[in-house]
Amino acid sequence: MLQTFHSLSEPERVAERVKALRAYMAKSKIDAVLVPRADKHQGEYVPACAERLKWLTGFSGSAGIAVVGKKAAVLAIDGRYTVQAAAETDTKVFEVSLLLRPKLADWLIANVAKGGTVGFDPWNHTAGEINRLTAALAPKGIKLKALSKNPIDVLWGKDRPKPPQNPVIAQPIAFAGRTAADKISELQTRLKQDGQSAVILTLPDSICWLFNIRGSDVAHNPVVLAFAIVPASGKAELFIAPDRLDNEARADVAPVARLLPPAMLPDRVKELKAKGKRVRLDPETAAYWFEQKLGAKLISRGQDPCILPKAIKSDAEVVGARAAHVRDGHAVVRFLAWLDDWASDGTLDEITAVQKLEEFRRDTNMLRDVSFPTISGSGPNGAIVHYRVSDETNRRVKPGELFLIDSGGQYPDGTTDITRTIAVGKPTKDMQRHFTAVLKGHIAVATARFPKGTRGIDLDPFARRALWQIGADFDHGTGHGIGSYLSVHEGPQSISRAGMAPLHPGMLISNEPGYYKVGEYGIRIENVVLVTMPDTVEGGDRETMEFETLTLAPIDRRLILPEMLEKSELDWLNAYHKRVYDTLAQGLDPSTRNWLKQATAPV
Amino acid sequence: MLQTFHSLSEPERVAERVKALRAYMAKSKIDAVLVPRADKHQGEYVPACAERLKWLTGFSGSAGIAVVGKKAAVLAIDGRYTVQAAAETDTKVFEVSLLLRPKLADWLIANVAKGGTVGFDPWNHTAGEINRLTAALAPKGIKLKALSKNPIDVLWGKDRPKPPQNPVIAQPIAFAGRTAADKISELQTRLKQDGQSAVILTLPDSICWLFNIRGSDVAHNPVVLAFAIVPASGKAELFIAPDRLDNEARADVAPVARLLPPAMLPDRVKELKAKGKRVRLDPETAAYWFEQKLGAKLISRGQDPCILPKAIKSDAEVVGARAAHVRDGHAVVRFLAWLDDWASDGTLDEITAVQKLEEFRRDTNMLRDVSFPTISGSGPNGAIVHYRVSDETNRRVKPGELFLIDSGGQYPDGTTDITRTIAVGKPTKDMQRHFTAVLKGHIAVATARFPKGTRGIDLDPFARRALWQIGADFDHGTGHGIGSYLSVHEGPQSISRAGMAPLHPGMLISNEPGYYKVGEYGIRIENVVLVTMPDTVEGGDRETMEFETLTLAPIDRRLILPEMLEKSELDWLNAYHKRVYDTLAQGLDPSTRNWLKQATAPV
Repeated sequence: MLQTFHSLSEPERVAERVKALRAYMAKSKIDAVLVPRADKHQGEYVPACAERLKWLTGFSGSAGIAVVGKKAAVLAIDGRYTVQAAAETDTKVFEVSLLLRPKLADWLIANVAKGGTVGFDPWNHTAGEINRLTAALAPKGIKLKALSKNPIDVLWGKDRPKPPQNPVIAQPIAFAGRTAADKISELQTRLKQDGQSAVILTLPDSICWLFNIRGSDVAHNPVVLAFAIVPASGKAELFIAPDRLDNEARADVAPVARLLPPAMLPDRVKELKAKGKRVRLDPETAAYWFEQKLGAKLISRGQDPCILPKAIKSDAEVVGARAAHVRDGHAVVRFLAWLDDWASDGTLDEITAVQKLEEFRRDTNMLRDVSFPTISGSGPNGAIVHYRVSDETNRRVKPGELFLIDSGGQYPDGTTDITRTIAVGKPTKDMQRHFTAVLKGHIAVATARFPKGTRGIDLDPFARRALWQIGADFDHGTGHGIGSYLSVHEGPQSISRAGMAPLHPGMLISNEPGYYKVGEYGIRIENVVLVTMPDTVEGGDRETMEFETLTLAPIDRRLILPEMLEKSELDWLNAYHKRVYDTLAQGLDPSTRNWLKQATAPV
Repeated sequence: MLQTFHSLSEPERVAERVKALRAYMAKSKIDAVLVPRADKHQGEYVPACAERLKWLTGFSGSAGIAVVGKKAAVLAIDGRYTVQAAAETDTKVFEVSLLLRPKLADWLIANVAKGGTVGFDPWNHTAGEINRLTAALAPKGIKLKALSKNPIDVLWGKDRPKPPQNPVIAQPIAFAGRTAADKISELQTRLKQDGQSAVILTLPDSICWLFNIRGSDVAHNPVVLAFAIVPASGKAELFIAPDRLDNEARADVAPVARLLPPAMLPDRVKELKAKGKRVRLDPETAAYWFEQKLGAKLISRGQDPCILPKAIKSDAEVVGARAAHVRDGHAVVRFLAWLDDWASDGTLDEITAVQKLEEFRRDTNMLRDVSFPTISGSGPNGAIVHYRVSDETNRRVKPGELFLIDSGGQYPDGTTDITRTIAVGKPTKDMQRHFTAVLKGHIAVATARFPKGTRGIDLDPFARRALWQIGADFDHGTGHGIGSYLSVHEGPQSISRAGMAPLHPGMLISNEPGYYKVGEYGIRIENVVLVTMPDTVEGGDRETMEFETLTLAPIDRRLILPEMLEKSELDWLNAYHKRVYDTLAQGLDPSTRNWLKQATAPV
């Protein structure tokens, strides 16, 4: 699961390819071209055939956009990729810039003459993005032009990989909990209420959720790259090569959707347009191509209507999530016991840890994939929030250091995501102080009770208060939504400074405060929690929700300063550890069980 | 300071006045007229001459709007005024409605024919309001028309009170801390940076702050109703009858501003227009009249540039705030001691309490006005959040009840705002449980430390957590900004679910969580706190801010369940009470001092 980017990049070919692109631009009378990392579905992971940004620039990160003008060219990336982008691309050709999306217009205004034309592939940008850019460039007389052929695909030619044709399997009702028919019927009721004749779905995880199917078209997210049209009444249409579905999936989908080859999508959109009725489309996730074909007038803008119901897990998905976390807990506990043993002789390195943890997960015989490339950071590497180990950066964990490992598994019944921070040798008092402050934040979230209507933004401060009190903080959100054998990051909910979506019972969300001391160590404690709504509290007058912690693995007791914990916090920790032991002990071999016994002993 | 609305309303004349208005409308070819509570300055308090809504409808509340159509008429108010509005107006003429402002368009669409005209006074609506309403009505063919004469003023005729001509006094530099010249120079630098040729100021408290003047044109807020134009360079213009300023004020203002009679404002705006340069105007606070006269093209929309610097108090204002709170603390402690004594014989009533508290404040010889009409609620009246006692609602506080009193004073060196909840006789366990949960929230805010960039929305959950844990909450914000001998409510900061403005050192803000058990009791504990930025915490790596509690008065110990408090919370309470005693004791007579000694004894 390592992202060893050095072997993927081809900086030596960047100049040659940009030269070819400029020749193509001249022939096509285009003054600049946009080459984003995004594919037709706007996901974090794209298939090999959509790695156009990497083909052109050499840069293999998960987000970014290149703009090639007649003379200048820029590769715009975010803060986590500064070093990697400069290493992977040819910096004589591309200026690597922390240019934010809204500032792209400024670059274009500076580098394209008045009256110039900027070409883009209407499939690889959202309608929102193109409309904002059009508005920003119009006053300067610069036009955007949707290209009928993607210039990179033309130049890439026959070397370009084929689009994925991997098998599509059913997500059994035992795990999904709701039939596709039930979900589609609910969606259709909503479309009728909103006066919309149909919705076009473009997000792979929305489509997989709605039709109870799964695939392997991209890494780590078990999704199928497909589109769908769901009319307000009548049968849905799923655009995917029918022979990709296995028998079970085909049997499940047949009653609710017609399977149509992807090549038929343009015709079907044309028919929607001919009907002249309002079609729901999400301007922030759907490709501009749809707006172009339908015409802005017919579009009823609204968030993808699968996002919220997908986030509220069915009872079966909740049962599956609990089972997946017990299974994952066994693997993580075996790993932590192994690590304690192995780290003691000072030979533990980051890559071996990643491989070993994946091995323990594979031993469950249920792992379909890891849910993202593991973050395995020892000492100072732990302080790099988006660190991915490579052969170059791999280092041993020295005694007296902290080791941070953030990982997860994709199981057919659920997706997991866990971070633990482990003391190797004797930790310093400062490490313990920071770890205990992070733990206090983690407990404050885990034990929170909160009324209906509470948003993630309202819980985020609980994760930070103890750190703030000692003059510390962390620069990432406290939690993200998690799919059910789907993406490890899903909306609408989040616990963060920007988390405006209300929480609902049935949502899964991570609880992961941290602390990062640059050049020294990183700390993060992450569990997945489920939003529940128990009976009203005795004597209370508001309906309140709570969290049930699903993740089961010990939190390193050697890093805790008990005198920093209130009694209620100690009680939570000891009760959590007792539950970890009681739930996991019987599935472990005697020596691991003994290790777990002491790792979960009361503090 | 009581708002005894029964004596002010004239419901018997409502029908007659609406009839006259409709005749005027017919003559003027208008199909509906808007009559808002707002005056030219959009403040919470308006002078008698601007009480047009009350003249027409009888309703005397502080917010609302009437719309009179050819046949139907609506009086739209918010939830706190449902009972009062129905009692004060003639409900045969006006439908009393909880219609929200954005829904006014719906009412107009339903009650005005296509092609109809809705008249409004361009002085009494903001540009933002009128532009949104215009956009909502345009598709239905309904036009808005700015009237050159206010129809109510025409009908009110010679009975209409004259605009206030009260004296304008200087806010001495000893209290203001910064000269008007200094503030204007900073403002002009900002205008130049933003490429604006001038700013038009319309908010009375912004103008009073900028020019270091105060007045008494409306109740409770010591402001002057004036307008000002500040050019990017050169002398400012203050539109106010020059003879209203006393000698000191005139001498202070002369070097920085020309005093012009208000009647000259239209000409000066015309001159600004003739220059054709961009003028800064706040569309959410400035009257539509300015946009109408200047033309939308010349307006550079932006928040009133005085709001943020006014909220960040000068060192002298901070010193003044501390002094005002010590003085106010003496008055409040004398009142609380008196109350404990008097309440014991069961004859304490809400109105007497209000009068007595004001008497103690007047005894300081420094009180200019109370800072708002006191909220004095016994038993179930305490649960009505916006309760104002009247002769009809006045009730005695019975033993076994709670008494909530929320009040404040306007002193030349600062504005105060304090709420205390007092047990009369023996409180129930439930009262104590709720009071202690409110206290925990109050302490969590008072003791918070937080990094740069923290917004009120990030602190609001601290005030609620303990209540949430027992299934309770409160339906108002936790805190509002407070002026310096100015409005008791000021922005941009607030501690609330919507508080997006970052906090800055020098801001004053209230800390007032509560709990309201409908039909039984209300609890609120309110202190004013100052945002401070002490040296970095030892071992910390972020700049953090803290609160210094300015309000000094005991919190009723009889209502506290010590077993619900963590040790750190008890420590705060006891240290706060010790500070209250140490600071106030020497200014008190022996018997009050004795009372304070026991009221602040360690818990």
